[in-house]
Amino acid sequence: MPAFRTEPTRDDIAAVRRIVTSTGFFRPDEIDIAAELVEERLGQGLEASGYHFVFADGEEGEAGASIGYACFGPIPCSLTSWDLYWIAVDAAAQRGGLGRALLEAAEASVRAQGGKALYIETSAKPQYDATRFFYEACGYALEHVFQDFYAPGDGKAVYSKRL
Amino acid sequence: MPAFRTEPTRDDIAAVRRIVTSTGFFRPDEIDIAAELVEERLGQGLEASGYHFVFADGEEGEAGASIGYACFGPIPCSLTSWDLYWIAVDAAAQRGGLGRALLEAAEASVRAQGGKALYIETSAKPQYDATRFFYEACGYALEHVFQDFYAPGDGKAVYSKRL
Repeated sequence: MPAFRTEPTRDDIAAVRRIVTSTGFFRPDEIDIAAELVEERLGQGLEASGYHFVFADGEEGEAGASIGYACFGPIPCSLTSWDLYWIAVDAAAQRGGLGRALLEAAEASVRAQGGKALYIETSAKPQYDATRFFYEACGYALEHVFQDFYAPGDGKAVYSKRL
Repeated sequence: MPAFRTEPTRDDIAAVRRIVTSTGFFRPDEIDIAAELVEERLGQGLEASGYHFVFADGEEGEAGASIGYACFGPIPCSLTSWDLYWIAVDAAAQRGGLGRALLEAAEASVRAQGGKALYIETSAKPQYDATRFFYEACGYALEHVFQDFYAPGDGKAVYSKRL
């Protein structure tokens, strides 16, 4: 596994855009949001932004050469629950367990900060079967499916894991 | 029923604070947030803030003399789902059906703007029994209870109504 890094740099804005785009899974407006979260963290800092990161740097080990990352944060109205906002691994680096390692690193960070549970929301559409299988394989339990939540025919699946 | 009004004024910042405080149901930090949503709407406008309001003015019919209100908005990642953020009626004006009328006005507004469902999140603690009975009496179905969501022993109940 490559080294993990929790401090984002300016180079990570482009890296996140590259990683997320490579997966082929996200719309342009979603890709913009992924990059914006890094910008908000850099501009506002950890506390004000609420965006925590784990980056996996490539073999070069340089910031900006990230090949995967996770973004997560405390849920504002909760004392103990956290949300996973993003997790993505560059298409060329997938199937080597990096996604699982990133998720476990995020969980360890949440636990170290007093979090008791990590929540993940994703689409219930068949196109996201592999995504949901990944979360289930990582120990996440399906809490509920909100039918037609995102759009007619596109439900929201909510997973959680006690930490 | 008093007249309903959808445009907030500067006076509503104090009115919301007064209404929410009168219920005895909210912590000081929650009361601050309730008032801040009115400020954000006034400062940023409807589109940028995403905060829609319905105010019930008292017999005087003046802005700033509101005796109840609801705050709601579209869920950013959804095409059709909306969230109810706040609903409160001044303690002196409760038990006359105003809460229900405010909720129905919010639902009508959501429907008129293309929304298909309104979601409500509240605590699963016994102290909120009356709150949850109110939503159920207004036609909301319990979707799911997320155990220990807000804090250990304080779950989150999510309700929804198709519009």
